[in-house]
Amino acid sequence: MNFNLTNSIEILQRTPDTLILMLKDISPEWTTGNEGAETWNVYDIVGHLIHGEKTDWMARTELILSDNVNKTFESFDRFAQFEESKGKTLNQLLNEFKMLREKNIEQLLSKKLTDKQMEEKGVHPVFGDVTLSQHLSTWVVHDLNHIAQISRVMAKQYKLNVGHWVDYLKILQ
Amino acid sequence: MNFNLTNSIEILQRTPDTLILMLKDISPEWTTGNEGAETWNVYDIVGHLIHGEKTDWMARTELILSDNVNKTFESFDRFAQFEESKGKTLNQLLNEFKMLREKNIEQLLSKKLTDKQMEEKGVHPVFGDVTLSQHLSTWVVHDLNHIAQISRVMAKQYKLNVGHWVDYLKILQ
Repeated sequence: MNFNLTNSIEILQRTPDTLILMLKDISPEWTTGNEGAETWNVYDIVGHLIHGEKTDWMARTELILSDNVNKTFESFDRFAQFEESKGKTLNQLLNEFKMLREKNIEQLLSKKLTDKQMEEKGVHPVFGDVTLSQHLSTWVVHDLNHIAQISRVMAKQYKLNVGHWVDYLKILQ
Repeated sequence: MNFNLTNSIEILQRTPDTLILMLKDISPEWTTGNEGAETWNVYDIVGHLIHGEKTDWMARTELILSDNVNKTFESFDRFAQFEESKGKTLNQLLNEFKMLREKNIEQLLSKKLTDKQMEEKGVHPVFGDVTLSQHLSTWVVHDLNHIAQISRVMAKQYKLNVGHWVDYLKILQ
């Protein structure tokens, strides 16, 4: 499928409610266990998604579309959630993510972006040129990546309970 | 986390609405593309989940709890959905899955299963003994496995659109 904004927003606007449905009020055993040392639990992942809404997706979109001479993105802090989520419940994080995402989609749509604008470029600090359509496509895939990760992290909390099935369930490998 | 029925049902009862939220009325480009030859698209996966509700999870539960001398499970047909889904829309499949799942959870809860019953066994045709708790745990992990798979299959429809990001998004590998 070629990139198109309508199809992209179909995914972006569903993600908060999908996560609310999967996670709101669920027993904490599902959301506090991770996949082992240096891995994230569900709570960490939702915090990471919030940090992206605040600092990455629309900020980089604005930079790409700006008149700035230097369009190099600021580095994204992959560990910001460990500080920023402190003291918040998972339900609070889910609501915060939904609110931020709605605001960002509204901001994105308000730009009435043209196909030409979709080819404008920013500069990623590691790998260089990124077009706006590549950036927005990445936002979509990033959502789906983390929905899959959340499913996997939750599945692994039951790994020891499935007996011989462990070898047949790809998600547990 | 040790197996427990309450936590298991938390997942099982959320899956249909999660899939409805992710997929209902979405553009068909997201649900008709697969990951390459011999792989399933989203429509195939939802059909597979339906076949499990009809023939696997509760049928095997009933067999495990029965007085049968032979408790060997019937083989599960992993390709049944290619025939059974014919002529149905994805929205119809999603509603059918929700209806079947609700009925199965009701049937499961009506049994008021004891810890002792959770240790009763059936026989898998390939790997032998399976306790009821292992069977029900597998049902839960199987749901999460397919939510992750659906996310991955959808993400791959955008693989060619993310530019250099392709190397950074694990779900696209």
